[in-house]
Amino acid sequence: MTNPTAAMLVIGDEILSGRTRDSNMHYLAGELTRIGITLCEVRVVADVQDDIVAALQALSARYAHVFTSGGIGPTHDDITADAVALAMGATIGHRADAMALLQAHYDRAGLPFNEARQRMARIPDGAALIDNPVSTAPGFTLGNVHVMAGVPNIFQAMVASVLPKLTGGPPLLSQSLRVDRGEGEIATPFGALASQFPDLSMGSYPFLQNGAHGTNLVIRGTDPGRVAEAMVALNRLFG
Amino acid sequence: MTNPTAAMLVIGDEILSGRTRDSNMHYLAGELTRIGITLCEVRVVADVQDDIVAALQALSARYAHVFTSGGIGPTHDDITADAVALAMGATIGHRADAMALLQAHYDRAGLPFNEARQRMARIPDGAALIDNPVSTAPGFTLGNVHVMAGVPNIFQAMVASVLPKLTGGPPLLSQSLRVDRGEGEIATPFGALASQFPDLSMGSYPFLQNGAHGTNLVIRGTDPGRVAEAMVALNRLFG
Repeated sequence: MTNPTAAMLVIGDEILSGRTRDSNMHYLAGELTRIGITLCEVRVVADVQDDIVAALQALSARYAHVFTSGGIGPTHDDITADAVALAMGATIGHRADAMALLQAHYDRAGLPFNEARQRMARIPDGAALIDNPVSTAPGFTLGNVHVMAGVPNIFQAMVASVLPKLTGGPPLLSQSLRVDRGEGEIATPFGALASQFPDLSMGSYPFLQNGAHGTNLVIRGTDPGRVAEAMVALNRLFG
Repeated sequence: MTNPTAAMLVIGDEILSGRTRDSNMHYLAGELTRIGITLCEVRVVADVQDDIVAALQALSARYAHVFTSGGIGPTHDDITADAVALAMGATIGHRADAMALLQAHYDRAGLPFNEARQRMARIPDGAALIDNPVSTAPGFTLGNVHVMAGVPNIFQAMVASVLPKLTGGPPLLSQSLRVDRGEGEIATPFGALASQFPDLSMGSYPFLQNGAHGTNLVIRGTDPGRVAEAMVALNRLFG
């Protein structure tokens, strides 16, 4: 059995200008790995409709799932929902179910449900709402595209709403060995080991600590027996 | 004058599996903004030759500069140099200039310049070397593609070698105002302000702090007078 594939699209000028350091990619990557969905590609684009549409069409055609973050708030630069509708050929408007959720939320808070806030009820027709336990304004799933907020705690809450509904493959297991040698010393035997286990992925990640070279050797795969077997061989080589 | 455009390609399974949190994107974004080059798109792909080649061809055709990070070490999963050569139609081999640099480095360190380490001298013909003051193994520039290491301190040193050689536009200035109101309250007047300054980019970034909603309003542009004028108007609205 192979694992379902996924891509992520991060939408926002603030990431590309260096103002904000994205944390959603790393969070989603870890969560997908845990449930056995393989994150194959990430793209980051600006708040530009044509760029969002082009990326969505490319990614949703190629991968089983696409997860987006950012651009679903009430301000003029929040254009993700309309871009997703355009990319997927759906109509979009202020949807009654989302309007009702938001109306109740602002009534409870004693705040006016003004035109800007109503914009967050713009949801493509045919999309399923994604629950937002933090601040109510929903995300949505349209086709294989899951649209979520960019604010990290809301993004994480939406991921928690979406992932249990998806079917993953066997979880990707990962084991590692830290060796106090540079990559150049271990590369040849490590490469030979990798070629003996073509069903596993073996990576080497060098680091410098207090001026000394070291390497983390990581073995990943979905078959626990094979990963264990490879780790025995790895320890024999470098342990 | 418009600013030159750029894209970044982050190469590595370890980012996509969630094992490592990338920091190079945020670093490069800040440095490019500082020198007036606009980072328009970032992609993250796995250590898969076809995926690297396809991304390089798409990005190098569209943007003035492409910066890559990752995959230029001595191990079997380091395939970036060969993928760049393939994408750009260049030949590649163990280049004499890179071999000489590395030979001298390992001689000084009293370490064998073995086959794995020699792999780091694989540089496409016609590429200019990028200096690596940290660990010698060079990056390179081929056409409009700048190929750099993934280890953050080496990546940063290579960025420092490359950027002074590039011509930027006027630096992108950024000023912000923090308001203790949610986006929904300020969206309509903020959007109206943005439409009065079509030459500037205005973004709004909500946050939750101690349960209270707040928003950072950011104005970006290259003309200091216009940014200042917009900030006066912004302070009059929300200050």
